Amino acid sequence: MKNISILGSTGSIGKQTLDVIRNNLDLYKVIAISGNNNIDLLLKQIKEFAPKYVAVFDEKKAKELRNKVSDSNVKILCGLEGLNEISTLKEVDILVTSVVGNIGLLPTLNAIKTGKTIALANKETLVTAGELVMKEANINNARIIPVDSEHSAIFQCLQGANKKEINKIILTASGGPFRGMNKEKLMDVKARDALKHPNWSMGRKISIDSATLMNKGLEVIEAKWLFGLEIDKIDVIIHPQSIIHSMVEFIDGSVLAQLAIPDMKLPIQYALTYPERVKSNTEGLSFEKYNELTFEKPDRNTFLCLDLAYEALRLGGTMPTVLNAANEELVMQYLDNRIKFYDIPDRIEKAMKKHNIIKNPNINDIIETDKYTREYINKSF
Amino acid sequence: MKNISILGSTGSIGKQTLDVIRNNLDLYKVIAISGNNNIDLLLKQIKEFAPKYVAVFDEKKAKELRNKVSDSNVKILCGLEGLNEISTLKEVDILVTSVVGNIGLLPTLNAIKTGKTIALANKETLVTAGELVMKEANINNARIIPVDSEHSAIFQCLQGANKKEINKIILTASGGPFRGMNKEKLMDVKARDALKHPNWSMGRKISIDSATLMNKGLEVIEAKWLFGLEIDKIDVIIHPQSIIHSMVEFIDGSVLAQLAIPDMKLPIQYALTYPERVKSNTEGLSFEKYNELTFEKPDRNTFLCLDLAYEALRLGGTMPTVLNAANEELVMQYLDNRIKFYDIPDRIEKAMKKHNIIKNPNINDIIETDKYTREYINKSF
Repeated sequence: MKNISILGSTGSIGKQTLDVIRNNLDLYKVIAISGNNNIDLLLKQIKEFAPKYVAVFDEKKAKELRNKVSDSNVKILCGLEGLNEISTLKEVDILVTSVVGNIGLLPTLNAIKTGKTIALANKETLVTAGELVMKEANINNARIIPVDSEHSAIFQCLQGANKKEINKIILTASGGPFRGMNKEKLMDVKARDALKHPNWSMGRKISIDSATLMNKGLEVIEAKWLFGLEIDKIDVIIHPQSIIHSMVEFIDGSVLAQLAIPDMKLPIQYALTYPERVKSNTEGLSFEKYNELTFEKPDRNTFLCLDLAYEALRLGGTMPTVLNAANEELVMQYLDNRIKFYDIPDRIEKAMKKHNIIKNPNINDIIETDKYTREYINKSF
Repeated sequence: MKNISILGSTGSIGKQTLDVIRNNLDLYKVIAISGNNNIDLLLKQIKEFAPKYVAVFDEKKAKELRNKVSDSNVKILCGLEGLNEISTLKEVDILVTSVVGNIGLLPTLNAIKTGKTIALANKETLVTAGELVMKEANINNARIIPVDSEHSAIFQCLQGANKKEINKIILTASGGPFRGMNKEKLMDVKARDALKHPNWSMGRKISIDSATLMNKGLEVIEAKWLFGLEIDKIDVIIHPQSIIHSMVEFIDGSVLAQLAIPDMKLPIQYALTYPERVKSNTEGLSFEKYNELTFEKPDRNTFLCLDLAYEALRLGGTMPTVLNAANEELVMQYLDNRIKFYDIPDRIEKAMKKHNIIKNPNINDIIETDKYTREYINKSF
C-alpha cells in the first residue's frame, strides 16, 4: 500500500489521478489532496477518498470548506504553506504534482528534500528550475517519474537501456488545433478555438500551450533535465494522431517508441505503479482503428514558441524561468481575450531580450526572476 | 574481444554478419565460418577474416577448398560433422546460426549444450524443436538472442520489462510481394515474382516464405518458444513499410515498438553487442522520408500458411516439425517451378492431417518426423 498526496486534485490531471486510484484501492491510499478554490469538488473528493489533509490555496475558501467538514477529522490547510505541508508529510510515499504553473515549484522542491518519489505532471517545475531540482533530487535520492505522456513514453523506452547509448530523443507533438494554418490566419484566432484540442482532453492553460507549440518547447526543456541530455539530442516531430507518445533513437540506429491511445490515465498509472505495471481500464490500442500514423516537420516559422524555448534552454541560467513566467502570464491574458495570438511569442521574446541572465541560479534568483518577469509582462504592454 | 563462429557465412545473413564484424574488428574475431558449396566466396572470406576453421557441407567441395588453401593454417572440415565441430569449439563465445532450414538444428543444439551464446537467425531450429531447444538452453545457461528483425524488436522492447506484464506481442509483417492479391491471381504466380520483395533483401527460401506468409507463421512459433508465451498472446499485423519491426502490448494498455530502416545488419549487430549497443553504419530513421506508417489485418483466407502455422503450434508435439519440413520441401519445389503457389498450403495441410503427433518429442522423434515428412511430400504427389 502506497500513500499518495496530490497537489492539484481538482484539475484535469488530479481528477484522472483519482480515477486511477479508484481502480486500484488495494494499492493506494489518498493521504492528502489540494485545490485552488473549487471546494465543492474537494468536498466530493473528501467524501470518497477520506484524505487526512486538504490544502485549499484560497484562504477564504479554506475557511468555508473547514466549516463544511467540521464534523469530520480531516484537517483543512491553506495557502502555499498548506501545499508545502501536504508535500512533506512523513507518511506520504508519492507526491503527485499536478498543479498547473509555477505554484508547484516550492512544494515539489520541499518534497524532493524529504526524499519522496515525485510523479511530476507539473512541467513548470523543471522548466523554471530544472538544474536546481535535479541536483536536489540526486542529493536526496528522490525519484522523479514523469507523468507527461511524452516524457513517460521516453522513460518507458529507456527502461533497461544505457543512457550513454542514446543518440537522440524524439518528442512527438499533435501539432495542436491550429496545425496547418498560416500566420495570417493565426493573427486573429481566439482562445476558444484553441481550447478545441483534436486528441487530448486537457486543462485550459495546456490547451493554449498546445496551440502555440510552447507546450512542446516546455517539454524540450523538461526532457533536458529529466534525462540529462544535451539540447542537440532533443528533436520534435509532428505526429497528428497522438498514438506514438515519443521515441528514443539509439546509437546503432534502432528506435524504441511507446504507443497507446491518448489517455492521460495511462502515464499517471505508470508513474504510480513504476517499476511495475498493473491492468488498467484504458482501452487497448487497435491498429485496425488507428491504421495510419503520419509524421511531419513542425512549422517553426508559424509557431514561434518552439524555437523560443530552444533558445531559452541554449542561453541557460534564469532564461527558461523568464520564458515560462512570461508565457504563463500571456496565456492567461490570451484566455481572457486581452491579447492576440502572436502577442504571446512577441512579448516572450521581448522579455527574454530584456533579461540579464543569472548563471547557476539559486531558488531566490528563480523566484525573483519569475516575479520580475510577470510584472514586466503585465505592466509593459 | 569476442570469438565468433558463423554457421552459413556465404548466405544472406552470414554475409551481413561479416559486414557487421568488418566494422567492429576491435570487438570481434572470426574463429570459424561455414558454407554449403560456394568455395569461391569462402576463399575470399578466409583471406579477409583469417578464421582457424572452415566447414564446407559438400565433401567434394571441401576437398577442393582444402587444396586451394594448402599453404595456410586454416583447417577445412566437412559434412554435418564439420558444422558440429565449429559450433562447439571451446574458444568460441557466440555462434551465429545463419544457415537456412533444418540443417541448423543439431549444430545449434550442440552449441547450446556447451553453454554458448546463440545469435539465432535460423528460424527452423525453434520451429521444429522449440520445446527441446529451450529446455536445453535453460539447463545449460545458454543465451539465445534472436536475429530475426521481428524477434529482435520484441527482445529490445522487453529489456527492463517483466514478462508477466505482457498482454500480447504483435509481430509485424510487410505482407510480402503479393499483398492485396486475391486467390485467383495467386493460382499462377511464379517463384520469380515472389523473389521481388518490396522492402528486404533476403535469401530465396525466406522470400518465398514471405510471399506465402509462412514466414510470419514460423515466426509465431519461434516467438512462442523464445518468449515463453501462450499462442493467444501472439498477434500478427500487416505493416507494409517494414519500419516498425514488432511490438509488445503490456497489461496496462501501453505498447512498446522497435523501429528502424529495414536493414538486417541492425538486429545482427544487436545480437552480437547485446546487452550493449555500439554505433552502426545503418542510416538513422528519417520520419520525413518514412512519414506514413500503415497497418491492416492479414488476409488469412488468401494466405493460408499463417493459420496452418497457428494450427500446428496449437496441436503441438511434432506437428510444427511436420509443418516446417513440408514447407521446406515444397518451397524448393516451387523455386524449381515444379508446383503451383497453392500446392504449398494444400500439401502442408495434407501432411499435417496424415501425421500422428508425438507429444514431448525427443531429438530422434523430431529427426524421424522431419525425414518422414520430406519423403511423404516428395513421393505422394
